[in-house]
Amino acid sequence: MAADIDFYFDFSSPYGYFGSTAIEALAARHGRKVRWHPILLGLVFRETGAGPLVTVPLKGEYARHDFHRTASLNGIDFNMPDPFPVATGAPARAMLWVRAEHGDEKAVAFAKAVYRAYFVDNADISNADNVIKVGSAMGLDATALAAGLNSPEIREQLKADTHAAMKRGVFGSPFVIVDGAAFWGYYHYATIDT
Amino acid sequence: MAADIDFYFDFSSPYGYFGSTAIEALAARHGRKVRWHPILLGLVFRETGAGPLVTVPLKGEYARHDFHRTASLNGIDFNMPDPFPVATGAPARAMLWVRAEHGDEKAVAFAKAVYRAYFVDNADISNADNVIKVGSAMGLDATALAAGLNSPEIREQLKADTHAAMKRGVFGSPFVIVDGAAFWGYYHYATIDT
Repeated sequence: MAADIDFYFDFSSPYGYFGSTAIEALAARHGRKVRWHPILLGLVFRETGAGPLVTVPLKGEYARHDFHRTASLNGIDFNMPDPFPVATGAPARAMLWVRAEHGDEKAVAFAKAVYRAYFVDNADISNADNVIKVGSAMGLDATALAAGLNSPEIREQLKADTHAAMKRGVFGSPFVIVDGAAFWGYYHYATIDT
Repeated sequence: MAADIDFYFDFSSPYGYFGSTAIEALAARHGRKVRWHPILLGLVFRETGAGPLVTVPLKGEYARHDFHRTASLNGIDFNMPDPFPVATGAPARAMLWVRAEHGDEKAVAFAKAVYRAYFVDNADISNADNVIKVGSAMGLDATALAAGLNSPEIREQLKADTHAAMKRGVFGSPFVIVDGAAFWGYYHYATIDT
């Protein structure tokens, strides 16, 4: 059995969202599974000195345009959210809790629903209440999810996971590692697929 | 007749070099010509606050690896130059002078030869002497080229061209504008080609 594909993403990353819509079909074509890793780009940027894409002069304008173009070219539902970008600690911790309590399949379904809530329905996912609503709509217990995403263990795990990702060289979203080879960015998927 | 493709590049940019090997065939497939614009990323980065790719933690390591992978996947001759990156005022000014004195075709041939000198033969193209050697090998007059690339008019033109590029939104290399649509990066060529 070929090794899993590690898929690193931040919930506020448009290209991460685009990648999330394609990564499983890509993996399946090669007999692989995907391991989803939510990370905090905010923590990563403290290390690399980078800032949010859309705040960079010239590049930011270009990026906003390219989000729409990329979504359109690939047939992906997309509405530019406002506010953008947002802090993603709440949804990332929620996903880790769902995985711990309900298993990986549920956690991945939850991650996709959170991405959709932000990039299609414009829910502000930096607000834990909106993240919990996404969980409730999937049948998760709202009270347990609220407690879980605020637990110290889950907070620590997200920080540790993000630092572990950086140790593997992860500096952006989406970031894929497959058989030791690293690929940053959604545009690389055509290459990975060959 | 369809409009020209504007191709912006910095002589120290590996992806600019990769783009330079593909842009003309791409344009020809669509009945277009290419207008080559050397720019100074150093000037651009002062505006955008960006720095050379390879100096960014994590991203720099990744980029060095990706240069080789991209060259290899696309069958492009490539040796990582040292020093890298370098100041590219001398080759950019030389190209502008060759265009002014000998026309566009010669200037494009010169640009390709400079890229090859740097990214295949590891000549330090920040040194005007090495740039002049590239010109001599093409039959250009070394004394005239040396004087031309140091002329105040050519220096002014390169600055003006770089600022004009920024006004059009150019912030990196390679950067292509075709029918008002902007594409940053070599990886986009498959998209432009459709």
